Amino acid sequence: MGRWEPNARGRLEQAALELYAERGFENTTVAEIAARAGLTERTFFRHCADKREILFAGAGRLTELVVGAVAAAPPSASPIDVMAAALEEVGTMFEDRYDFARQRHAVIEASAELRERELIKMASLAAALAAAFRRRGVPATAAALTAEAGVAVFRIAFERWVAGSGEPDLAHLLRESMAELKAVTSGRSGP
Amino acid sequence: MGRWEPNARGRLEQAALELYAERGFENTTVAEIAARAGLTERTFFRHCADKREILFAGAGRLTELVVGAVAAAPPSASPIDVMAAALEEVGTMFEDRYDFARQRHAVIEASAELRERELIKMASLAAALAAAFRRRGVPATAAALTAEAGVAVFRIAFERWVAGSGEPDLAHLLRESMAELKAVTSGRSGP
Repeated sequence: MGRWEPNARGRLEQAALELYAERGFENTTVAEIAARAGLTERTFFRHCADKREILFAGAGRLTELVVGAVAAAPPSASPIDVMAAALEEVGTMFEDRYDFARQRHAVIEASAELRERELIKMASLAAALAAAFRRRGVPATAAALTAEAGVAVFRIAFERWVAGSGEPDLAHLLRESMAELKAVTSGRSGP
Repeated sequence: MGRWEPNARGRLEQAALELYAERGFENTTVAEIAARAGLTERTFFRHCADKREILFAGAGRLTELVVGAVAAAPPSASPIDVMAAALEEVGTMFEDRYDFARQRHAVIEASAELRERELIKMASLAAALAAAFRRRGVPATAAALTAEAGVAVFRIAFERWVAGSGEPDLAHLLRESMAELKAVTSGRSGP
């Protein structure tokens, strides 16, 4: 097999997810993932450190996307509007990814180790976002709160999305959850 | 040594924290913690599963306190006001605990394993709070967002507190961070 494998990473992610869903994360080996993807173990390790990390490759892309969107927003926009616009990009990233996202979520929920890893990735995302807001001149506390609010909106919208049928889509649920956060913090949301 | 040890848990917590600060979490044994507290290993294990958990005993008390405060709030209060009132209780819990809180925070920041554990405890706190709001009749999404907002305010205020001199106190910083969250989500906080 040559060094260049078309979409090797995507094939490995898909193969890993299928195997984790079929037989559990703990009972799957890297050799099996590579074989299912039609690739070698060596190719696996060129793309990924271990069988856990293959599930979290998307978290790096997500962070890049939202941090990039925050950096690129007009300087005069308020932090919460910048955060909302960055979440719109996230909605776009997950378009047509419902089945993958839902399957991945189920695999992660089934393993304490993977749930912990997901928490760490979300904390890193919040830290990267807070830093991006500080680079825009937002004071540290406001930057941290905006970032945490954005990540909370993302997580809650995402959970609603994968718990449902895929409709409405993630972009819609992100907007709805952001509006709900504003209603809640302004005291407009009743008991 | 008899079975009854006055304030054994508090003495173990204090001894563990001192030793972790002096020689690092990884290099400290349960036997050393018990000896420093003037207690036996057996007494340690009556109070705590392992040397990691001894640092997180307070997280259980914190969850109990805020969940209790949410449950006890007047039925007509808006979720965000209930959350703010529950955070007032937290401020009271940490009164006169600045040195302990600051030392504990430094120990946790120095260890990846402990930072992960802290993330898990905060996620459990958010889940317990969301459930408490749902029991008050708050719809699931608003309950989850209020809980996440409350935990974010707590974490950010707490970090500001231990990063400073102890003044202003935690209760003050909690109120200030809650006000800042409201300013941020309403778009009143500029770039």
